Amino acid sequence: MRVEAKLEELGLALPEPAKLPPGVQASFAWVRIYGDRVYVSGHPPLSPDGTPSGPFGKVGAEVSPEEGYEAARLTALAILSSLKRELGDLDRVSAWLMVHGMVNAAPGFTQTTNVINGFSDLIVELYGPEVGTHARMAPGLVALPLGVPVVIGAEVAIST
Amino acid sequence: MRVEAKLEELGLALPEPAKLPPGVQASFAWVRIYGDRVYVSGHPPLSPDGTPSGPFGKVGAEVSPEEGYEAARLTALAILSSLKRELGDLDRVSAWLMVHGMVNAAPGFTQTTNVINGFSDLIVELYGPEVGTHARMAPGLVALPLGVPVVIGAEVAIST
Amino acid sequence: MRVEAKLEELGLALPEPAKLPPGVQASFAWVRIYGDRVYVSGHPPLSPDGTPSGPFGKVGAEVSPEEGYEAARLTALAILSSLKRELGDLDRVSAWLMVHGMVNAAPGFTQTTNVINGFSDLIVELYGPEVGTHARMAPGLVALPLGVPVVIGAEVAIST
Repeated sequence: MRVEAKLEELGLALPEPAKLPPGVQASFAWVRIYGDRVYVSGHPPLSPDGTPSGPFGKVGAEVSPEEGYEAARLTALAILSSLKRELGDLDRVSAWLMVHGMVNAAPGFTQTTNVINGFSDLIVELYGPEVGTHARMAPGLVALPLGVPVVIGAEVAIST
Repeated sequence: MRVEAKLEELGLALPEPAKLPPGVQASFAWVRIYGDRVYVSGHPPLSPDGTPSGPFGKVGAEVSPEEGYEAARLTALAILSSLKRELGDLDRVSAWLMVHGMVNAAPGFTQTTNVINGFSDLIVELYGPEVGTHARMAPGLVALPLGVPVVIGAEVAIST
Repeated sequence: MRVEAKLEELGLALPEPAKLPPGVQASFAWVRIYGDRVYVSGHPPLSPDGTPSGPFGKVGAEVSPEEGYEAARLTALAILSSLKRELGDLDRVSAWLMVHGMVNAAPGFTQTTNVINGFSDLIVELYGPEVGTHARMAPGLVALPLGVPVVIGAEVAIST
């Protein structure tokens, strides 16, 4: 379990499963496995107890780029938490393929690339460049579920 | 043809193929089949005759969340209409994988999750949880083609 | 090398690799190859020297729809440049599957479909309808990296 050893080495813990606020219904799966592919729903950053983690709002306005980077890093941990529950072992991921990084952006904010790096930097650190390096989109959205500053989804390949 | 029987049971009819307004050119395929995968372009909600269906505008402003939910449900029918034309039989879909649900959102609107549930709830009702449950993104966009309140695209697996 | 011959016939040259401005870090791969699939990151339109190409700003405001169309066409060339570097031969692409076309859109701008056609029209012209026709999303975003008017990513299949 190399990835989990690496997480521990970095002092990082995976959050509890996402707890959506009252009135928000998740009519979808956080993770959809099919053959050698895993489709990962858009995850918000989570607190250790699984509640969406602040600061809330738009990067470039209420949320600073540095806080946005940190939120993207927390979102990586939220996704790893979902993957671990479904796959058992995070080392089963054989390739990170495509990442859909979405930034809740103030209209004039153009540094979305650096924000989503908070996700990518951690994934590459944990998995190494060969498995971890991925293609990516990093647009700025006018609104995201729950008002979180970033939401990130992905497609990964697994060993079957 | 279980899915179509279920549609009839629910009193739901599939719309005609999408008719785009004059001046809008679709330089793409509504559905792209390759091997055991089908890539589904972003569809708008359609009226029975295939014209984009109102109400138009932004959810959280001109369009209510409930109307947005209903628009997402209509978009599911538009996608099923395209799939039926290309696949012949809707039962050929063996798994709904990833859904890109996009909400035309007013800046402060954070309930995009519930809006796209209008799509997901119907797909799971029609296909059952094993085939129908999917991963999903549900961001809020500042603008969508034609001014419709939702646009939804997807990737599904088919039996070949 | 049919696609490159076609490019030359059209008088089109591929730009240099993307050069991001100081302070923007790309913690991702422009192209991720895995098995018979290639995942293409969101690319901006590029000048011949690889720097992001203007006009910058929002389509429907500072950027006209026609300029947006041209930017989408330049983005196709940027993606082909990345694919050529990684694949060696552009003819290895056996199918364009899904395209994520994102328009930096003014709030009331609903003609995003026609803007992204600048990408799709060129790809179909270069590859022909059987290989080149793809499914597509074409939403309007409130912000894009670097302030460019369009960013486009994709998934394609290759012969292995």
